[in-house]
Amino acid sequence: MGAMGKPVFLLSDFGLSDHYVGIMKAVILSRCPGVGFVDLTHEIPPQGIAQGCYVLESVWEWIPVGGVVLAVVDPGVGTVREPAVFFHHGKFLVGPNNGLFGFLPDDLEGRVLDVEDHWLARVSSTFHGRDVFAPCAAYLAAGGNWTHLGRAVTVPVRLPVEDDPVAVRGSVGRIVYFDHFGNAVTNITGDGVERGALVEIAGRVQCAVVDTYAEAGEAEVLAYVGSTGRLEVAVRNGSAQRELGLKLGERVTLTD
Amino acid sequence: MGAMGKPVFLLSDFGLSDHYVGIMKAVILSRCPGVGFVDLTHEIPPQGIAQGCYVLESVWEWIPVGGVVLAVVDPGVGTVREPAVFFHHGKFLVGPNNGLFGFLPDDLEGRVLDVEDHWLARVSSTFHGRDVFAPCAAYLAAGGNWTHLGRAVTVPVRLPVEDDPVAVRGSVGRIVYFDHFGNAVTNITGDGVERGALVEIAGRVQCAVVDTYAEAGEAEVLAYVGSTGRLEVAVRNGSAQRELGLKLGERVTLTD
Amino acid sequence: MGAMGKPVFLLSDFGLSDHYVGIMKAVILSRCPGVGFVDLTHEIPPQGIAQGCYVLESVWEWIPVGGVVLAVVDPGVGTVREPAVFFHHGKFLVGPNNGLFGFLPDDLEGRVLDVEDHWLARVSSTFHGRDVFAPCAAYLAAGGNWTHLGRAVTVPVRLPVEDDPVAVRGSVGRIVYFDHFGNAVTNITGDGVERGALVEIAGRVQCAVVDTYAEAGEAEVLAYVGSTGRLEVAVRNGSAQRELGLKLGERVTLTD
Repeated sequence: MGAMGKPVFLLSDFGLSDHYVGIMKAVILSRCPGVGFVDLTHEIPPQGIAQGCYVLESVWEWIPVGGVVLAVVDPGVGTVREPAVFFHHGKFLVGPNNGLFGFLPDDLEGRVLDVEDHWLARVSSTFHGRDVFAPCAAYLAAGGNWTHLGRAVTVPVRLPVEDDPVAVRGSVGRIVYFDHFGNAVTNITGDGVERGALVEIAGRVQCAVVDTYAEAGEAEVLAYVGSTGRLEVAVRNGSAQRELGLKLGERVTLTD
Repeated sequence: MGAMGKPVFLLSDFGLSDHYVGIMKAVILSRCPGVGFVDLTHEIPPQGIAQGCYVLESVWEWIPVGGVVLAVVDPGVGTVREPAVFFHHGKFLVGPNNGLFGFLPDDLEGRVLDVEDHWLARVSSTFHGRDVFAPCAAYLAAGGNWTHLGRAVTVPVRLPVEDDPVAVRGSVGRIVYFDHFGNAVTNITGDGVERGALVEIAGRVQCAVVDTYAEAGEAEVLAYVGSTGRLEVAVRNGSAQRELGLKLGERVTLTD
Repeated sequence: MGAMGKPVFLLSDFGLSDHYVGIMKAVILSRCPGVGFVDLTHEIPPQGIAQGCYVLESVWEWIPVGGVVLAVVDPGVGTVREPAVFFHHGKFLVGPNNGLFGFLPDDLEGRVLDVEDHWLARVSSTFHGRDVFAPCAAYLAAGGNWTHLGRAVTVPVRLPVEDDPVAVRGSVGRIVYFDHFGNAVTNITGDGVERGALVEIAGRVQCAVVDTYAEAGEAEVLAYVGSTGRLEVAVRNGSAQRELGLKLGERVTLTD
């Protein structure tokens, strides 16, 4: 992989209908030829810092050592929020330090991207994904020394708790994410959750914890520990979000 | 290409708004650094095994020799359906043996993925795409011997005929797929279909077979042998699906 | 990058729900193993030549030298429109010469893709993206001599001015594009636009030019020179398209 650089994993709220993601990749390829890309998702809701943070936390353990994650959900672009890079478990995170990286350990030290030599020559006030973050990610993918990207140090900014869907954990939690299938992901961690335990959703739906989707009958409600280790609620071969009328933030209670 | 591995082609019903596809690619890159990816589509309808099978059949001839196709439409994940690998025409197919691979020859022999050494250390009951199929695909992309992935042999499972939109062929068929343009793809094979032949759709629309879209007037209905060799129905510069109110499974008749 | 080929950048109106983009990439990989891909966008509106041209113009400066752009918005596929390749600023553009490449200089000379040795053996009348353009792009990505692809020369075709949203420039212009955020991009170039200048949109909305999104209050209308150098109109943390009811082609006036 040496000559080609480390892979770059991208997350943003840019969507795929525009050319913004393609432009960031073009900038990276200009500076790190042959690098490979993986799109984590570009469908974070516009300005959805908390959702972006949730997805980054969910994928973090799967990013290979040496990988570079470029994350851009950046409503404060062009203002005082810091552009930053963090190094954790042998991999890099580059993007705005606005809460998006709030899942990282409190005491982790990163760098403010304040060395302009690594930016594009002209920096716009609206697209730092292209002008600041992409060239810094390319430098890392090409094997550059991350401490050269910034002279100043920083720590991961966290969202205020009321904006952070994953701040509270325990047997009482809430829905923090709906996936493409309409499965409702909660912020209740799955460690120690027993098969057969009872789950109440939004004060009006009850179901039991099972091991696999197939244990439930067609169109039946079920709960299970999902693939990222959190309690999830689904409708077998259906959409829990649509069919149960669930909303983000609704309360979920687990009774052993 | 040697050092980078064979390319991996992905198909699923995961959509692109979540991070599931990105996680599968991250797992593959962890085990086969530098591998390249091609997304065939991740917009198979949820649990749409028949549609997934149709798309795999349509792309199969174009996959380069040595390529690895990772296909995950897996409503039975965690249950008795077999995880499998098939080798056909010099290329590999990895995924659940639940009908998705029913387009392969009847007598083709594959392997049940029953050698756990090739899986992730922890296997969830809901995301075998990540835990079983991705690491096995990575092993193949890195040049591993496919017979080492499973001790048991298997043959491609087929959907029951009533669930399989491509099982019946002839001059009477039906609509099996709508593409992004609203063109209706039928299960009538195009071999020997003559220019000028008449086509009746859903008992209420008639048109003639032409060679190119441009032979029809603006907003006119036309039929033609599509790029995958099947009879298709379109509205020139419009959507046949929307403008003719067509539905999957509607009958199409070809008269020479 | 040598052994792997130059990267190929793709743009089309094919969408991502079908397998058409994947098939083009499979064809390219068959002829240029190890090549890397970047999707610019596949969400150009069906048959939207003008929008495709706008996006190509917007990304062109960011494509790295040696890069190959494969662009397919091709309502005239199978008819007299020319398949073509252009070479400009050290990079290549391959696709139908139907107006899609109308942003290139008037006097630029390209080649008609008329050397059938470089096409697939069988050419359909509906999918030249796969049968003609992809193999020619693969030949270029692999380092082939572009003048071998065509014996005849050609110049970039332009859309008639009434179909070309970017033909008129000045301080009176119109909306030529809405991005994923609902920001309205105009055809007014940003050179010399001063902070504080007044903008009138659609004869009913007024706002001032600012430098960053954050200078506007929540839900306030703002104008600014966007990342591709054109005047844009946005609603802070909202959608100008939806909240102001804007439409493509509506008039925008800039007063210093």
